[in-house]
Amino acid sequence: MIEAPGQTAGVPGPGDAGKVFRTELNPVDFLHRAAYLYPEKVAVVDGERRYRYRELAERSWRLANALRSAGLRKGDRVAALLFNSAPMLEAHFGVPAAGGILVAINHRLASREVAYILEHSGARFLLLDAEAEPLIAPLSIPGVTVIRCGGGHGQDPYEQFLAGASSAMPVSWLADEEETISINYTSGTTGQPKGVQYTYRGAYLNALGEVIVAAMSPESVYLWTLPMFHCNGWCFPWAVTAVAGRHVALRAVDPDAIWRLFDGEGVTHYCGSPTVQLMVINHSRAHRLERPVTALVAAAPPSPTLLGRMAELNLRVVHVYGLTETYGPITVCPTQAEWQQLPLEQRARLLARQGQGYPSADLVRVVDGDMHDIPQDGEAMGEVIMRGNNVMSGYFADEAATDRAFRGGWFHSGDLAVWHPDGNIELRDRGKDIIISGGENISSIEVEQAICAHPAVLECAVIGIPNERWGERPKAFVTLNNRATATAEEIIDFCRQRLAHYKCPDIVEFGPLPKTSTGKVQKFVLRERDWAGRDSRVGAT
Amino acid sequence: MIEAPGQTAGVPGPGDAGKVFRTELNPVDFLHRAAYLYPEKVAVVDGERRYRYRELAERSWRLANALRSAGLRKGDRVAALLFNSAPMLEAHFGVPAAGGILVAINHRLASREVAYILEHSGARFLLLDAEAEPLIAPLSIPGVTVIRCGGGHGQDPYEQFLAGASSAMPVSWLADEEETISINYTSGTTGQPKGVQYTYRGAYLNALGEVIVAAMSPESVYLWTLPMFHCNGWCFPWAVTAVAGRHVALRAVDPDAIWRLFDGEGVTHYCGSPTVQLMVINHSRAHRLERPVTALVAAAPPSPTLLGRMAELNLRVVHVYGLTETYGPITVCPTQAEWQQLPLEQRARLLARQGQGYPSADLVRVVDGDMHDIPQDGEAMGEVIMRGNNVMSGYFADEAATDRAFRGGWFHSGDLAVWHPDGNIELRDRGKDIIISGGENISSIEVEQAICAHPAVLECAVIGIPNERWGERPKAFVTLNNRATATAEEIIDFCRQRLAHYKCPDIVEFGPLPKTSTGKVQKFVLRERDWAGRDSRVGAT
Repeated sequence: MIEAPGQTAGVPGPGDAGKVFRTELNPVDFLHRAAYLYPEKVAVVDGERRYRYRELAERSWRLANALRSAGLRKGDRVAALLFNSAPMLEAHFGVPAAGGILVAINHRLASREVAYILEHSGARFLLLDAEAEPLIAPLSIPGVTVIRCGGGHGQDPYEQFLAGASSAMPVSWLADEEETISINYTSGTTGQPKGVQYTYRGAYLNALGEVIVAAMSPESVYLWTLPMFHCNGWCFPWAVTAVAGRHVALRAVDPDAIWRLFDGEGVTHYCGSPTVQLMVINHSRAHRLERPVTALVAAAPPSPTLLGRMAELNLRVVHVYGLTETYGPITVCPTQAEWQQLPLEQRARLLARQGQGYPSADLVRVVDGDMHDIPQDGEAMGEVIMRGNNVMSGYFADEAATDRAFRGGWFHSGDLAVWHPDGNIELRDRGKDIIISGGENISSIEVEQAICAHPAVLECAVIGIPNERWGERPKAFVTLNNRATATAEEIIDFCRQRLAHYKCPDIVEFGPLPKTSTGKVQKFVLRERDWAGRDSRVGAT
Repeated sequence: MIEAPGQTAGVPGPGDAGKVFRTELNPVDFLHRAAYLYPEKVAVVDGERRYRYRELAERSWRLANALRSAGLRKGDRVAALLFNSAPMLEAHFGVPAAGGILVAINHRLASREVAYILEHSGARFLLLDAEAEPLIAPLSIPGVTVIRCGGGHGQDPYEQFLAGASSAMPVSWLADEEETISINYTSGTTGQPKGVQYTYRGAYLNALGEVIVAAMSPESVYLWTLPMFHCNGWCFPWAVTAVAGRHVALRAVDPDAIWRLFDGEGVTHYCGSPTVQLMVINHSRAHRLERPVTALVAAAPPSPTLLGRMAELNLRVVHVYGLTETYGPITVCPTQAEWQQLPLEQRARLLARQGQGYPSADLVRVVDGDMHDIPQDGEAMGEVIMRGNNVMSGYFADEAATDRAFRGGWFHSGDLAVWHPDGNIELRDRGKDIIISGGENISSIEVEQAICAHPAVLECAVIGIPNERWGERPKAFVTLNNRATATAEEIIDFCRQRLAHYKCPDIVEFGPLPKTSTGKVQKFVLRERDWAGRDSRVGAT
């Protein structure tokens, strides 16, 4: 039974301290409310398991109470090596409800990387999916209490852990909404991973921002294609629950399962990179959906081909951009009604822009090396910087990295963009993906977009490769559509019709692209080959 | 031209003080963002005038800069006696952008009441619509700078006031989101009106709550049937702007204009009491709308007849409840999908409940005289109390009234409700509308709902009238539908089939009901006659 609000935490009873007109922003309260208003509504579908909001809340409070009984103190880190599942969702509510800090770990990391995160975060608890056991088996982690999750049956230790605890919402220990709710470790392409701290306030506001940008309502059904370990699933565990929508869990991105759930569960929303979108649109079960389904696309802009095909299937694209340090997305491309009239390629070009800040965020800036705004001319390139409620509070236990990232009072994304006259930003390169050829900057993203506009191209990645004369020159790696054909010369010609010739690749290589678990192309893998044996990955003229 | 965010207020430039990860919540930023992302989109339609978001922002910043040039200091009160119009919307952004506190005044008050509010609030400026001039003419208000608004033409002093000022967003003086953004005076049915203070934080969060509860998006078109002077239009000036939706102004509730704008402007949302809804559904132009239009209904629950007719017209009802002290609505009836299958009368009975807290609010409680929760049995009656971010910060310059309202750490609404087993509240009486007959409490709302279920009844009001034997007895005032007929005996019989007999009225009087400017029935006018010549309005046995 859901307790009356006066008898539970989050809503202090008569005589409690604090201001009548202020409650600390806390996304845990979204679950309390959803369970109170919609107790019998299905909250989560996880394979054969279906939990109503009353059950999801009870299970989350059980987790919280069990953690406290097991010795959790305020601020203790609770790591989770879980797939998208009911327990992972419960961890997003139960751990902060207990007063702990959630450290959700990418289950595709190597053992040694997991060990680093457990060690660095000082985790005292670990929620461990049975399938992730091999990651932990080689490690010695004496200070960590491991709670194993497997199958949800009576013998499941996680279920036993819950069964032994009270289902009443625990009294909140939160004193200030700027306390840390979670730590998300970056992928660490350079150096060791860094622990990005999210606050209760930021998570709450970002969740409401996602509700608004994705236009979710109590009728929404959200499919978990995005891993919850990735930026806490862009705060969607909290966002979907804020509107008492339905979570549909998905352990791995499997286009067959995605189409089965689109049709069978009435999915209305999901998130994914173009790589995920490509898997969805190219699957044999793909068909036009009766109701529009909203797809938040990030990591790279959707190509005209992708956009056209998604529109045919009734998939409505919302293009967003962000980083782990910004709770996932912080900007959204503001679609204008007039765009519907434009030809596909032009529409794709406009929708390729990352746009501007979420309703819950500040507007972002693009600056030069002295932190002065660059010209808003769509040509000059600068670094994207952010500040406000959708920016992390810092890197856990790494003051030097925090100070560097926050220099001048703004968070420095390391991403390069142009700034359009209408105020929208458009990414040119993620951090180090810029190619410098004969002293000219070439945006690998710009070249990729030009190549992706070719009707035969499914996806592509462009890197700089060493060149005696120019320092670096662009090289393209291209995957073609099923049954489509194109030669390297055709691709290069196509590119030269669209871009300055110096920006066009000299070499095109065909084949599948190496990807991270979140669907990002691993350019460093591509670079390995061409840069093998060199000290620097930056070409010198 | 909209300034780049780094060059304007709200987004401090490099080297500014403050935390990188915190921006004070400020609804003014919604306009800054909307104008930045959607500069060419029509923001407001006001008769012949149509302003794009760029223009609405520029006009609001001009107002702010002009107020500062005219001597406004931080925290100065700026009163507005304006109809729903572009200038009234601009006041909701320009006054807080200037650092002033907006005091929007009901233009249907008497001169003497306006004088009290100007005096009590210490207003230094007054934005005055030409049509409201007669309210001010008899007054001596030497300390108040009056800016007259009329027609929006070149000779309009308000337009001249704007023309002389910069259109750049002024640097924000906001230091803390708990500062006061506006003061809204209660209608003062008992004693003098009280000045309800809203904070920037509360206004921001309530606006996002309204976006979510009303399910608004950038495609939304909001019709201003609700007066903006009433609880700052339930924060919808800020909410609609948060999603860059469109405002359609309406100077007075005129069903002919409402239907013209429904059809001509593609309205998607509006708010109104059942009285307003009745005017809408009973108008000769009423017809089924192609797209569903969301109607937020407050002040009284919709009757089965009203609900049925609204469904026929494709008007989707969201039933909400609140007070001036809670920024307008603070609870919403959580519609459950299963309800669609129920017969109309049963559905209306469920939808008549006021529900529970907004996503942005805490859950509300119902308590006895000792502030203990009453049983959740749907029978016991208690007082509705609230706390959290959607509660006012206090009454302006009235510590005693604030302390009384906030006793025990909760805001006391004075409204009486039952608490259902599923946690929803259902109002039984607004403050003093309880009828005590032979020592038994009778809820006038419960009796009104029973009578309103009669197919011939358009609306009704029930009051207690003095009775020698029982102290008080219920009396019903009834307005019948066009062309419908019913006798008093039929109404009483109908009522006795639904309620305990002691709750049913002894007398039914037919005719139109006296209303306030916001559509609430003025029960005190009805009571005047029956209680004339008595000291107390509470019947003694």
